[in-house]
Amino acid sequence: MADSDASNRVRATLPRGLIDRDAADIAAAEAMMAKIRDIYSLYGFEAVETPFIEYTEALGKFLPDQDRPNEGVFSFKDDDEQWLSLRYDLTAPLARYVAEHYEKLPKPYRSYRAGWVFRNEKPGPGRFRQFMQFDADTVGAASVAADAEICMIAADCLEALGIKRGDYVIKVNNRKVLDGMMEAIGLGGADNAGRRLTVLRAIDKLDRLGPEGVRALLGAGRKDESGDFTRGAGLDEPHIEQVIGLLSGVTAYALTEDGAGATHVLFGDGAEGQRLPDGANVVAGSYRAGGGAAGNVAAEGIQHDGLKELAEIEALVRAAGYGPDRVRIDPSVVRGLEYYTGPVFEAELTFETPGEDGKPVRFGSVGGGGRYDGLVARFRAEPVPATGFSIGVSRLLAALRAIKSPIVASAETPGPVVVLMLDRDADSMANYQRLVASLRAAGIAAELYLGDGKMNAQLKYADKRLSRCAVIQGSNERNAPGGPQVTIRDLKLGAELAKSTKDRADYLELRQRAQFAAPEADLVDRVREVLART
Amino acid sequence: MADSDASNRVRATLPRGLIDRDAADIAAAEAMMAKIRDIYSLYGFEAVETPFIEYTEALGKFLPDQDRPNEGVFSFKDDDEQWLSLRYDLTAPLARYVAEHYEKLPKPYRSYRAGWVFRNEKPGPGRFRQFMQFDADTVGAASVAADAEICMIAADCLEALGIKRGDYVIKVNNRKVLDGMMEAIGLGGADNAGRRLTVLRAIDKLDRLGPEGVRALLGAGRKDESGDFTRGAGLDEPHIEQVIGLLSGVTAYALTEDGAGATHVLFGDGAEGQRLPDGANVVAGSYRAGGGAAGNVAAEGIQHDGLKELAEIEALVRAAGYGPDRVRIDPSVVRGLEYYTGPVFEAELTFETPGEDGKPVRFGSVGGGGRYDGLVARFRAEPVPATGFSIGVSRLLAALRAIKSPIVASAETPGPVVVLMLDRDADSMANYQRLVASLRAAGIAAELYLGDGKMNAQLKYADKRLSRCAVIQGSNERNAPGGPQVTIRDLKLGAELAKSTKDRADYLELRQRAQFAAPEADLVDRVREVLART
Repeated sequence: MADSDASNRVRATLPRGLIDRDAADIAAAEAMMAKIRDIYSLYGFEAVETPFIEYTEALGKFLPDQDRPNEGVFSFKDDDEQWLSLRYDLTAPLARYVAEHYEKLPKPYRSYRAGWVFRNEKPGPGRFRQFMQFDADTVGAASVAADAEICMIAADCLEALGIKRGDYVIKVNNRKVLDGMMEAIGLGGADNAGRRLTVLRAIDKLDRLGPEGVRALLGAGRKDESGDFTRGAGLDEPHIEQVIGLLSGVTAYALTEDGAGATHVLFGDGAEGQRLPDGANVVAGSYRAGGGAAGNVAAEGIQHDGLKELAEIEALVRAAGYGPDRVRIDPSVVRGLEYYTGPVFEAELTFETPGEDGKPVRFGSVGGGGRYDGLVARFRAEPVPATGFSIGVSRLLAALRAIKSPIVASAETPGPVVVLMLDRDADSMANYQRLVASLRAAGIAAELYLGDGKMNAQLKYADKRLSRCAVIQGSNERNAPGGPQVTIRDLKLGAELAKSTKDRADYLELRQRAQFAAPEADLVDRVREVLART
Repeated sequence: MADSDASNRVRATLPRGLIDRDAADIAAAEAMMAKIRDIYSLYGFEAVETPFIEYTEALGKFLPDQDRPNEGVFSFKDDDEQWLSLRYDLTAPLARYVAEHYEKLPKPYRSYRAGWVFRNEKPGPGRFRQFMQFDADTVGAASVAADAEICMIAADCLEALGIKRGDYVIKVNNRKVLDGMMEAIGLGGADNAGRRLTVLRAIDKLDRLGPEGVRALLGAGRKDESGDFTRGAGLDEPHIEQVIGLLSGVTAYALTEDGAGATHVLFGDGAEGQRLPDGANVVAGSYRAGGGAAGNVAAEGIQHDGLKELAEIEALVRAAGYGPDRVRIDPSVVRGLEYYTGPVFEAELTFETPGEDGKPVRFGSVGGGGRYDGLVARFRAEPVPATGFSIGVSRLLAALRAIKSPIVASAETPGPVVVLMLDRDADSMANYQRLVASLRAAGIAAELYLGDGKMNAQLKYADKRLSRCAVIQGSNERNAPGGPQVTIRDLKLGAELAKSTKDRADYLELRQRAQFAAPEADLVDRVREVLART
């Protein structure tokens, strides 16, 4: 391995947080995405795609972790000194697309898109700087029926992928309710926009960091395992408890029905179906249950709207036959992105898989979304309401693998038939090529071995390719007295044979099936025979 | 349109050289790529994908137009101050991938990948800063059989896509021959690497700029229409003529056969099948034909190797049944990328389409590739030979559209069935949802109109969605005495009816078919009937 150029050699490695995908990964993802695409299409959504690069200004700054350097986005200057960025999600580019092509689009505009997005964030286990999202969005529909539909699509997608009812739930909340709470704890107004966002992002990390982590982020701040410090929202103790109480459902929502409509009641620990204490006459507001004295915090306006929308969404999904085991109102959902203005959704897998330390862990979120009524309006004078949902493709794929979903398991295809190259003169080469071509002409994936290896290396190569079958022709076979012959080797049976013993009664028969000679003219038929074996 | 925020509004526009893709674009590209994937798979190539971002150093600087600012690549610094770049092709990342995963990969390693690549270049008509390539590569095979295979795959792909034999040609040349010529005109050695590249890139532009443009780029330089000046290679007049002569085939290659083998002869205007003048005894070299005196320019070493490889490739493709109408040696092919070391290929469409000025133009190149034996070796001590081919997806798609290929034409799918929303009370909404759900449950793409429009607007919306069929249910129909009814409207027939006259004998029958009532229970069957109409 002496090499004078060793010092000049470039390191063959990827920047952190980026990964390659091999054939099995790609096939599994494609199979999964085809199912999702089917569901989206069934709901009348149509495909659209935007490029990876946009004007930084067009994307806006709506990312979580905005406090990090470079604001979580990969950016660079164009020749004309304007800033460009790699998209960090598929929603901001969709807003630009809709605004740019507004006149020609049908309205409401239902669309879907799968695509890679980029975050210049600290990578971690299962956290990459390039990852794929698969979104469905309805733009131009103000009705909560659009939000309800998105929740149902999400539920349908998960079931279509083989995730059993009860193993997932689509949780729904409303930013308006959260905004009401913010006002209640003195974080209303434009001046507090930054702190509100910090609070939302702290809440969004409940799953990952637990209540203590969130408490720290709501207060002074938090140091993570690597020693990095994230500044907190600076709330005082009572307000922190109020937020945590809301999250954990101790302080939950309340919205009574007046006997006429389907308006729903949520309270106590957030579970549906419970009733307010007799005599309670709450129209809208936060309700403190638990050990202490019950009391209503009056809330009006935006919070009331939020609760009403939630009640409507709930009524719509129930009417469509989606029970609380599939779509459920949950006060702990917030979503980390700044642009949401109304209902927010989170798709959660509730089953457990063994974690890194062997302990069972819940799989958690595989997607989310919400209403973003202000995003298109950044570009246009008229309001353009919109709502959508984004599936995290790699996380969902990991989940499907964990439950051994047949959809991803059956996606792997066997390798091609490998025709060995034993003689390398021009004439033999041409003949091997003819054999391979005859297989291909019959629709059988086949290749001629093109390396320098001898026969054993070539067979090992075929094994590595997961080939079922190798075709061998030496000069003796080619010049056989009765016409050219080929040897066909079943590599799977061959491997079994190698593990078998000669004492077995069927050893000889097995050997005969594992490798046999055939007239060259029968090549395609006999190879087909082997490929059809189980 | 009075809006006080108008000044704050963001412009909804893409940076130049970037475009969106709508549903029809995506469907056409997908259909085309599925065919290409089939061919690649049939040849035993397997999928692999790398991320969009790599270390700038890992990608290397092999791009054409290296003289432009930012060197044609989008680059940015990572947090740790290392330079990252968006990939500018799929070959350099593949080399990194193979080097990184060398031990676990089968060798030779045949793989394919479709992916977006980025060039920070001046965009123009049909020239984008983000475009898709679809590559097939064989890594670890030094044999020209691998190059020959690549040429045959390229030809098969084009035919599978409906491009007729005679309407395309895969042209083959060899960088080694060009390198020999460079030496002959005094551009050998490491010191002249930059100038050699300038010469290659000048030659590569023959198609676009014509001989005069290439002459300028070989000499002092060239000013383009926009006034931008590109510095030339600085060759003197005789050397420029020598290069141009080689390109135009006036000075062409020669390699005699010695009676024993299949070594081929190329000369004169580059056409195959011609013979050297009697008594010529050229082993390898450039041969001057045309008006002047015939004469051999002796050439040795690398140029001889190059000619021999070309002869071998030609023999292999001919033996496999690919005639000169499909794969042909052509001295004018060079390819603009620096990393090629041996055979280079160009897939050219030879049919003509009306250009922008109405005059017929040849469609030209839709892909190319070549051998890049040095690319993986940048990372590893041992030599790793490799060859591959890249299809320009958008250019090829444009060509398929020009010839009205059924593959892309049949890719467009009709829009969903649209269920109109005439009543918006909770109860009606739930009922509409039920109708839509019953269609979806039968596998029919269907949606509930979710906008604010009245009936006419809703029907227009369905037209815009290219829906075949709308479902209408007002309260009268829902509460019909004999049980709930629906009205089903065939939008295609409806449009025909609108253009028809009432005098037609079959007008009433047509009208009855274009819109009819049916029991709600028959909804799925009757909608299916309409969808099945031609």
